Amino acid sequence: MSQSSNPLLNDADMDFLLREVFDVGALTALPHFAEHSPETFDMYVSTARRFAREALFPAYEPMDRAPPELTPTGVQVHPLAKALFPQLVELGVLTAERSEAVGGFQLPWTVTTAANLYLMAANLAAVGYVALTSGAAHLIEVFGDDFLKRTFMAPMYAGEWGGTMALTEPDAGSSLGDLRTTATPTEAGHYLLRGSKIYISGGGQDITENIVHLTLARIDGAPAGVKGVSLFAVPAKRPGPEGALVPNDVVATQLIHKIGTRGLASVGLTYGEAGDCHGWLVGPANRGLACMFQMMNEARILVGAEGAATAAVAYQEALAYAKERPQGRPVSERDPTTDPVPIIAHADVRRMLLRQKAIVEGAVAVVLKTAHTADLAQHSPDADTRQRWDLLLGMLTPVCKTFPAERGFEANTLAIQVHGGYGYTSEYPVESWWRDQKLNSIHEGTTGIQGLDLLGRKVLAGGGAALRVLGDEITASVGRAQAAGVDPTWLQQLGDAAQRTARTTQILGAKAQSGDVAGLLLHSADYLEAFSTVIIAWLWLDMATAAQRALSAGRGGDLHRGKLQAARYYFATELPKVPHLLALCESGEPSYDDMQPAWF
Amino acid sequence: MSQSSNPLLNDADMDFLLREVFDVGALTALPHFAEHSPETFDMYVSTARRFAREALFPAYEPMDRAPPELTPTGVQVHPLAKALFPQLVELGVLTAERSEAVGGFQLPWTVTTAANLYLMAANLAAVGYVALTSGAAHLIEVFGDDFLKRTFMAPMYAGEWGGTMALTEPDAGSSLGDLRTTATPTEAGHYLLRGSKIYISGGGQDITENIVHLTLARIDGAPAGVKGVSLFAVPAKRPGPEGALVPNDVVATQLIHKIGTRGLASVGLTYGEAGDCHGWLVGPANRGLACMFQMMNEARILVGAEGAATAAVAYQEALAYAKERPQGRPVSERDPTTDPVPIIAHADVRRMLLRQKAIVEGAVAVVLKTAHTADLAQHSPDADTRQRWDLLLGMLTPVCKTFPAERGFEANTLAIQVHGGYGYTSEYPVESWWRDQKLNSIHEGTTGIQGLDLLGRKVLAGGGAALRVLGDEITASVGRAQAAGVDPTWLQQLGDAAQRTARTTQILGAKAQSGDVAGLLLHSADYLEAFSTVIIAWLWLDMATAAQRALSAGRGGDLHRGKLQAARYYFATELPKVPHLLALCESGEPSYDDMQPAWF
Repeated sequence: MSQSSNPLLNDADMDFLLREVFDVGALTALPHFAEHSPETFDMYVSTARRFAREALFPAYEPMDRAPPELTPTGVQVHPLAKALFPQLVELGVLTAERSEAVGGFQLPWTVTTAANLYLMAANLAAVGYVALTSGAAHLIEVFGDDFLKRTFMAPMYAGEWGGTMALTEPDAGSSLGDLRTTATPTEAGHYLLRGSKIYISGGGQDITENIVHLTLARIDGAPAGVKGVSLFAVPAKRPGPEGALVPNDVVATQLIHKIGTRGLASVGLTYGEAGDCHGWLVGPANRGLACMFQMMNEARILVGAEGAATAAVAYQEALAYAKERPQGRPVSERDPTTDPVPIIAHADVRRMLLRQKAIVEGAVAVVLKTAHTADLAQHSPDADTRQRWDLLLGMLTPVCKTFPAERGFEANTLAIQVHGGYGYTSEYPVESWWRDQKLNSIHEGTTGIQGLDLLGRKVLAGGGAALRVLGDEITASVGRAQAAGVDPTWLQQLGDAAQRTARTTQILGAKAQSGDVAGLLLHSADYLEAFSTVIIAWLWLDMATAAQRALSAGRGGDLHRGKLQAARYYFATELPKVPHLLALCESGEPSYDDMQPAWF
Repeated sequence: MSQSSNPLLNDADMDFLLREVFDVGALTALPHFAEHSPETFDMYVSTARRFAREALFPAYEPMDRAPPELTPTGVQVHPLAKALFPQLVELGVLTAERSEAVGGFQLPWTVTTAANLYLMAANLAAVGYVALTSGAAHLIEVFGDDFLKRTFMAPMYAGEWGGTMALTEPDAGSSLGDLRTTATPTEAGHYLLRGSKIYISGGGQDITENIVHLTLARIDGAPAGVKGVSLFAVPAKRPGPEGALVPNDVVATQLIHKIGTRGLASVGLTYGEAGDCHGWLVGPANRGLACMFQMMNEARILVGAEGAATAAVAYQEALAYAKERPQGRPVSERDPTTDPVPIIAHADVRRMLLRQKAIVEGAVAVVLKTAHTADLAQHSPDADTRQRWDLLLGMLTPVCKTFPAERGFEANTLAIQVHGGYGYTSEYPVESWWRDQKLNSIHEGTTGIQGLDLLGRKVLAGGGAALRVLGDEITASVGRAQAAGVDPTWLQQLGDAAQRTARTTQILGAKAQSGDVAGLLLHSADYLEAFSTVIIAWLWLDMATAAQRALSAGRGGDLHRGKLQAARYYFATELPKVPHLLALCESGEPSYDDMQPAWF
């Protein structure tokens, strides 16, 4: 097994992306990042990279093999998860992108996402406890008052308390408007919560002395549906009369036996069984979903990073295996006495590896692109520019959430296939990443939900303005590619696919305007797939441009040749699938729409 | 959980396929099946179906949860596996398709395959011990002499001894010509074997008193490569001087920790550590691979059935869940106070279910079609007709092996997705079938090997004769469909796709004739996918024809309407993908061929 020498991601590729494709150094021109320099960016990424390889990765398999247990005194996580948490806090993962005002490094998301890719590729579960804490604290930072910040956010950002996001309920699932957890106001200012939540990652853990559950609930008498949902901070232990922490009547009553990411505890929580569960309102009453969704870009970029990282580490493992494992001979070699060749010499194995590369590096690129766009949307100096990037961010987010999850899963499956029978055993690590990856098409909004979001909200935003921003950006990329001398057929192909996508979007938009919402959304899955393919092709063009420039300037090497080859593969095999998918969208092909339950 | 009420497969669909699509009753016109009648066929399938539901299925989860263990005295399988083995023997599974001469029922493979689909959907691991024994015994039946039949075959067919197929070695993998296990002749007539094998399913089990390993090995001094491989019967215990069984120096030294089909023991075997492992030659020396491959159709139909069955049971589970689980509202419903609807009311869920249906029923159809073709190839009265069906069988077999494995895996993944977060937990059964299914793209020849087989051997067989047979059969189907009043656009589409496939095959055949074997095989994966899509579309057309006939005759119902709807889905979404795949084959698109190891 080559696990110990697995590099997680290709460093040369990451440096290429950050410097030559995204030019992260240019972000220091934005006032928010003015204190930084390319060197401080480098330092954070390289420190995280080293920690990922030396500390996180060796703990991955033990944590997968011995998942948390629910005991009468609570959830017991793996001792390694306990040991790694303060080290990740020390590294700055909790607050790396937060502002200096709350003790953060004020780094761009682009940079912290690059670091997260390494951390997640090494040990997603260990990182999960920290990422969830950071996200929960951030909600309080943005929407909470001084009391909430002092009482809850501060110890979370200090790494003393943990945090979770408690949205899902057993009966409501993705339909958040149907959640039933109740919050009854008291004269003391807090609310009394009662209900239950499920799939609460990081819930019940025994790593930190306390955990704050950012919980969606319905205040008594609130309107039905999403407009009656509020956000609360509900600590596992609350400050008691003498300042000491006392139990707050919210208990992990169930441990979920997930098939992957098994090192990260996921629990069912029961609130207020004894009628004594205190919660504090975060943000305005009945605006809980809106608060939660303002953080959703961040959460979905994190899921995209999970997907890309999980596909990347498996790809590296398969690549090393294919270079080392001798088996068989080239199809043209008839002499059985010649030595077997490494399996990478077989065309079909190179196909599986190049497909993985095209997916993995496309996924890493879209995750960084989305983070970069988020940095620009949030910190560009003028409002118009921010608005422009925000429209692009809205469209990129469902792609960032979905492409690494769905195509990344395909890449993880190919990593097993490259290993043959060995890949089907738990003696080799590829099967564990394959299990881990499957979660990413489900949590933080299923793939189906992402399709509805993209088509129902994002591409039609601003009355066509969003699509125009994308069109302008693609046109600019095509111009740069042309100047760099990239294969002109690729430019033509991408331009055609983008125009065709815009046309389909207009046709669907007309359905929406005529009130046919169901017709608009019928083929949202096909639309998401087509749209994602165009976005990834666009990013492959940007990568090809940077690679071609390097080669033309005489500073190119294997990395750049590989980039051009993977781009060629993507343009030849994937982009031609787009017209068929868009035709299904345009025609409103009715087979599953008309299908009756009794006919299945 | 609805597991206990899961029907495994849709009975109405199975009856429809056997009667209206394949007309199994007509097989009784062949002399080999003359003693049978539609009633005896029915009886076997319905007995197997009942046993699958009542006995096998309840044992599935316990066997998955507690896989076999390797103890100092050997492998200990689950007690339920021990209890079910004699019941499956009693049912006739060991010999159902074998001739009456060896105590079999002499049933058509079409019928036994229908029964196997239920048995495998219920509990693949339990059936595995029996199927492997039957296959091993059959090798001796066909190639062994009287001594071998009396000594080994008879107790295996009686269900007293087990059997395995021992091909793979740790270093050789799919490259069977490189295997190193040796066989040294003795004057007593037996050989002394020495070496090791891996992934031996059913090896070391403690169900039967003895196990016969049908083992590939190389006789001392044999030619290198596949032409020096011989087949041996190597019992775990051999008849000793006084007739009692004595240990034969072949030992299960390693238990493989597979990620699925965990109830079926898979072991590493060590032969002749003490120099005392006796083996008996089966068939001619140095013809072992040829013997093994004469059985390969049977083995690959069984793997196809595994894939179809594993996708089917998960589809049924997802379907039941989608009908029962209330969540959310139609996209056009704005009132949050209305009741949530069952998720099958959501278009995207129906999409996932219809896709599963199209895959599952397409997979079941191709498995039955391949078995039916095998029956005709083996038992048609005249040699020309047999030859004709044999050419078709050759092409169908890699599709039968691959489509249920690859697309079936996609269907299994969709069954998880329909379950949302619940599907990602071991509290629900869909994840276990998803793990089980992954094996089918690997064992009995990986998907890559199937592509090489289809393109390198099968479609070019007989100097174009094979493809002509297929073309004639498709033309006949199109004629029947037209007469039945099936949607004429489907006929046109299928005809075009078949012609396009033939053209691509000719172009590739020309490469082969010019000696460019690597060029012929470069896109064998794309070719296999395109070819499989055409085959499955053809079978969907046959199903649509039978359904349309039933509806036109006034005896149609939900089943037939669902068939037409799934056919419509397949023609609209899948068949249009073929031209792009064939274009890649024709152009010899070079991205992965040119890719250098250092560029990854």
